[in-house]
Amino acid sequence: MQNMPLLGIDIGGTKIAFAIFSEEGSIISEETILLGKRDGDDAGMLITGGIRKLIDSASRIGIRITSAGISVPGIYHVSTGRVWTPNIGGWEDYPLLEKVREETGEIPVVIDSDRSCSILGEVWQGNARGCTNAVYLAVGTGIGAGILVNGTILRGSHDIAGAIGWMALSMPYDERYAGYGCFEYNASGDGVARVASDLLAENPGYSGYLSSIDQRELKAEHLFEAYDKGDSLAADTFSKCIAYWGMAVANLISLFNPEKIIIGGGLFGPALRFLPAIKAEAERWAQPVSSRLVMIEPSALPCKAALFGAAFLAKRNISNKIKE
Amino acid sequence: MQNMPLLGIDIGGTKIAFAIFSEEGSIISEETILLGKRDGDDAGMLITGGIRKLIDSASRIGIRITSAGISVPGIYHVSTGRVWTPNIGGWEDYPLLEKVREETGEIPVVIDSDRSCSILGEVWQGNARGCTNAVYLAVGTGIGAGILVNGTILRGSHDIAGAIGWMALSMPYDERYAGYGCFEYNASGDGVARVASDLLAENPGYSGYLSSIDQRELKAEHLFEAYDKGDSLAADTFSKCIAYWGMAVANLISLFNPEKIIIGGGLFGPALRFLPAIKAEAERWAQPVSSRLVMIEPSALPCKAALFGAAFLAKRNISNKIKE
Repeated sequence: MQNMPLLGIDIGGTKIAFAIFSEEGSIISEETILLGKRDGDDAGMLITGGIRKLIDSASRIGIRITSAGISVPGIYHVSTGRVWTPNIGGWEDYPLLEKVREETGEIPVVIDSDRSCSILGEVWQGNARGCTNAVYLAVGTGIGAGILVNGTILRGSHDIAGAIGWMALSMPYDERYAGYGCFEYNASGDGVARVASDLLAENPGYSGYLSSIDQRELKAEHLFEAYDKGDSLAADTFSKCIAYWGMAVANLISLFNPEKIIIGGGLFGPALRFLPAIKAEAERWAQPVSSRLVMIEPSALPCKAALFGAAFLAKRNISNKIKE
Repeated sequence: MQNMPLLGIDIGGTKIAFAIFSEEGSIISEETILLGKRDGDDAGMLITGGIRKLIDSASRIGIRITSAGISVPGIYHVSTGRVWTPNIGGWEDYPLLEKVREETGEIPVVIDSDRSCSILGEVWQGNARGCTNAVYLAVGTGIGAGILVNGTILRGSHDIAGAIGWMALSMPYDERYAGYGCFEYNASGDGVARVASDLLAENPGYSGYLSSIDQRELKAEHLFEAYDKGDSLAADTFSKCIAYWGMAVANLISLFNPEKIIIGGGLFGPALRFLPAIKAEAERWAQPVSSRLVMIEPSALPCKAALFGAAFLAKRNISNKIKE
């Protein structure tokens, strides 16, 4: 198997990244288009049109795409080829595989969720190379986990395994967790701002950096700014979030006994400064032997783990066909 | 494949159960011997001697054992054939597979941990029949989970996956969790007594049923007795434990999206009266779609799930060989 260019596509909530990869994992060319306000079939046609254009223009310069993989920001149902993506309107049960196949013809296509693609990307070209048991913990606007078990993605009975944003980590239950889950409510990008808002409400005398910001506009980035200025409320916010991140990592260690846990997503990023503190917190809680054996690392492919994973899906899909 | 009697062996911390099974899963004969204070090779010889005797006496009545499976109370390292069992002295790294093979000769032998065997037993003859994604949550003196993913046992990178007793479920970290894990410290058989002791210490004015019991002797069974008499401290104890059990079940649902969660072990048993409350607690925390799809059930094989699982290991072992 030589010279088999792969097409990787990462559909996000706001934009779509297309890239042609060599089978060895280098990006040959790359393009991003904005999703805009498109929904339903309009969003679908933007993607299938982009694929068509890319296949054609590649073919004009002598590159014949042999296989395509797509990462979707939500859930992929492997038995039906349909996707559920909360941030694209009308995609509650969208037949993406069917739509894409109409465009790609003989080129095989395979789809999976962004969290599954992210761990596969790290296994192929990132910090989980060579691992067969590894987890990608994605902390951004939401929180999810891509989990590799014995070299295979953990899907569960209905393709919704890895919903770690729902992990219960602190009693008592709070009605505000509904719609997010305990972990995501407290420790996603928006969660950081929520924790800070609660602390601000509890500290009416506070007059630091954050008091100059309209509370309705408070975002994680303000907390990082405040933290860098030595703000105590920001420090308290992150110390709470570090406890959540550390406990979640510990629970992944105890349950899965993985070789690696990769921490990525938009917040890691800036929150990588807390990685030593998160490791220390995880070590207190986790099964001690598994804890000694695991490596906890940042993503080696920031913003691109899912794109690489989509191309790896494409690669594995033709390798399997060749084996058959 | 007909008429292929299987030998299942369940090594516990205090006794060893041997049973001959039909390949359809009925017990043909069964025997239990006490481990006593035996450790190291003495414990090993008790087991291999038992196996030899059983194979011989079966053969005298015309039953030819075709395959044997063993459940161990700890960790089984599949690549080395060695076991780690905290409750049998000198078995920190005992070469059980090698010792047993010396006795069984041509009869194939396979070993796994009690938690793995328990979920396999439920899949074969219990409440998880037909499942490919299911979890056995074992709550006894300790807490562990046998986890089936895509029909395969989740082993992790070093065979210690499923160490759910270490699950972090409530902040802040307490130094007393070291050696147990947060979940096990608060919600195992001994954990129930520990929670009650803490509540007794916090309520010096309490004069109910439990005040008549020497606190150093306090056990989970006393709490069930007190609960049945309407004791308020016992009710508070179990309400705290129900929160832990419910949160742990919720986390299994959100992470694994399983078809079934089977709750077993010595405490379930008597704590099965709380199953509706545990389900309600789990439902509040878990990913809502996975939560709607999962079934949470008691073990159908109380005290025998691991024994059935050991025989199922034996059965699968020869089925695989026949396929090869």
